[in-house]
Amino acid sequence: MRKTRPAGHRDGLTRRALLRTTLGAAALGVMPDATQAQEPSPDTTKRWGRLPNALGARSPAENPRRTLNPPTSSRTPLQDLHGTLTPSDLHYERHHSGLAVVDPRAYRLLVHGMVDRPLTFTLDDIKRFPAATRTCFLECSGNFFGTREETTPQDVCGLTSQTEWTGVMLSTIFTEVGAHAGATWFLAEGQDAAVMTRSIPIKEVLGDAMLAYAQNGEALRPEQGYPVRLLLPGIEGNACVKWLRRIELSDQPFMTREETSKYTDPLADGTARQFSLVMDARSVITSPAYPQAIEKGFVEIRGIAWSGRGVVRRVEISTDGGRTWKAATLQQPVLPKAHTRFRYAWQWDGRPTEIVSRAVDETGYVQPEMSALRSARGRRTRYHLNPVTGWTIAADGRVRFAVERVRV
Amino acid sequence: MRKTRPAGHRDGLTRRALLRTTLGAAALGVMPDATQAQEPSPDTTKRWGRLPNALGARSPAENPRRTLNPPTSSRTPLQDLHGTLTPSDLHYERHHSGLAVVDPRAYRLLVHGMVDRPLTFTLDDIKRFPAATRTCFLECSGNFFGTREETTPQDVCGLTSQTEWTGVMLSTIFTEVGAHAGATWFLAEGQDAAVMTRSIPIKEVLGDAMLAYAQNGEALRPEQGYPVRLLLPGIEGNACVKWLRRIELSDQPFMTREETSKYTDPLADGTARQFSLVMDARSVITSPAYPQAIEKGFVEIRGIAWSGRGVVRRVEISTDGGRTWKAATLQQPVLPKAHTRFRYAWQWDGRPTEIVSRAVDETGYVQPEMSALRSARGRRTRYHLNPVTGWTIAADGRVRFAVERVRV
Repeated sequence: MRKTRPAGHRDGLTRRALLRTTLGAAALGVMPDATQAQEPSPDTTKRWGRLPNALGARSPAENPRRTLNPPTSSRTPLQDLHGTLTPSDLHYERHHSGLAVVDPRAYRLLVHGMVDRPLTFTLDDIKRFPAATRTCFLECSGNFFGTREETTPQDVCGLTSQTEWTGVMLSTIFTEVGAHAGATWFLAEGQDAAVMTRSIPIKEVLGDAMLAYAQNGEALRPEQGYPVRLLLPGIEGNACVKWLRRIELSDQPFMTREETSKYTDPLADGTARQFSLVMDARSVITSPAYPQAIEKGFVEIRGIAWSGRGVVRRVEISTDGGRTWKAATLQQPVLPKAHTRFRYAWQWDGRPTEIVSRAVDETGYVQPEMSALRSARGRRTRYHLNPVTGWTIAADGRVRFAVERVRV
Repeated sequence: MRKTRPAGHRDGLTRRALLRTTLGAAALGVMPDATQAQEPSPDTTKRWGRLPNALGARSPAENPRRTLNPPTSSRTPLQDLHGTLTPSDLHYERHHSGLAVVDPRAYRLLVHGMVDRPLTFTLDDIKRFPAATRTCFLECSGNFFGTREETTPQDVCGLTSQTEWTGVMLSTIFTEVGAHAGATWFLAEGQDAAVMTRSIPIKEVLGDAMLAYAQNGEALRPEQGYPVRLLLPGIEGNACVKWLRRIELSDQPFMTREETSKYTDPLADGTARQFSLVMDARSVITSPAYPQAIEKGFVEIRGIAWSGRGVVRRVEISTDGGRTWKAATLQQPVLPKAHTRFRYAWQWDGRPTEIVSRAVDETGYVQPEMSALRSARGRRTRYHLNPVTGWTIAADGRVRFAVERVRV
């Protein structure tokens, strides 16, 4: 039944051509000719392999890396990722004065201000409270960089990542300290050299705000704020203060530098959007994308979509540069405020075109074109840009970032 | 409002005692006395911190490790984990002749037997098919080792882990090769030095069997079968053949060594349970557990539960050695065939006792006591043991594995 051939008899190209024909001929499962079977090679069956290790490591053939924007950020290689999670060592990082290395035994969190009982918590104290777990994305509000055709998904918007977080609900801590009914804002302060401080409106976030001490099953990583960070699902990353050392409750915002001179959106009319904390819906196709080249026939268009306002209701794909749109399949379960994997089965006919994605969230919000963002907000802001993006496909199959779409 | 004191003014014990009192006095939020606030220390705010890295690393203060059972396995440190996921480098490993290091460019998968079109697939071929993602546990069927009081969760049952997997559905591949209607079994063969081979009944697994090439967002790790493994959610790990090189469809099982002399359950009457592939429901309390010591007052009992037959419907906790049981809270979303985090709020009164957990799955199956397993199966098998386990708490708060419960 099994026909064996010398290893290498059928080379990769021939094999791929065959599969392409198959996949292209009909929606999977239609095969014009039977093919010859071939043994795997090289032979790894003759000698004992490596023994168990206390810690695993990647295959030497796999080398995903964050790209660096020294001295303040690194970006997640979205094009190398599958599924919905970001491995912790590939989660984007963003800090304003380097990452603080905190001794967990010396860690203290002070919660004070408009409370009955100002309290200081050790890390053990925090871990002792009832815990909660949730998966959500985290995104920097300055996450748009598409200016050249030679732009990868990681380049365009690698300042978004997703992990499963565990910690204590902020509401639990607020109950513990006896937060005053009149407290409407709190200050979150980090213990990095930037002493990052942000004002957060309590009512808007208390339902799912968390003090996170774990991600992806293990302790938080240093660049994510070890040992404890504020996690505000759906809210811009900068407000999710890392190396959290102080929370002060108040009845007004504190107007820190990071919400006045920074992280506001200056508008065309001279005013500014301020405390625009929620990350609006967005999507990006991560495959095919620059620098890939595709072949005619079956191509699964893959990417991620997310919204700070809840679940992604729909992702629409255009394979004709935005003239017509069809729904992609969303990987279940679709979680609120979470990267959602989408996939769309496409037959490429070999003609040049442009593939585009746009997300629609549970509020009905539709990811806007850059032109719409520019008319609403002018050109003076580089925060909170979530334009529809896409990729051009040339006749030779080469994929490039569709710069014209965002150069408006 | 903020009262500052020299660092170390209030030592950990005093602080913990205070928190304990608070947590113990009422269900969170009742605080007998106001307390003094204290600045964090040491000061990490005066100098720029570390710059961005292409790859992150754990805090030097965190050192989770698999324990080794050379030469064939390593166990996940369940007591160090939070939430539901296992970091890929801490996923348990189990192999019979070491782990194979496979060159992905040379990788080939042959699918043949009762098919219209025997085919060989490269890794690129496999990745080109429509993809699917799912989170599920993977457990070795020999995952029970509780014999001593000085046993950690990792020792008792560290051969279970959970990651998010991405790959192509086996049913897609079966369509592609034209699987015969009469094919009822398939052989899965690995390219490790053990040439691991198992027979799998098609009808039972085809709904969610997958050829996985990614876990936790990135490429599969070498000890998980890089570049491609068979993933059968809910089925014993051994059947999820790693470094998969061959699938042969047939109308009967192949009766390999691993399903005759191994991975069967010899019964008391001389017969054997064979192809008992599904992993039955189980739970384990991961905190408090040996070698922890607890204090009087509020303790959140935490652990994981799972079932190879679907979702965990309920986890019951006894804090009186099995006399009375109450429901734990299950972390949502509860996924089928997945580690499910449970938590139970407990007030320890300081008296010696035993805390126990048992899982109930969607079929109504109740995790059995070891005595029930022994009467049904005798003493000649060490596979598929999923007894109810627990931890004794001594008057001094020391936690030990409850050996008497499983020594029957």
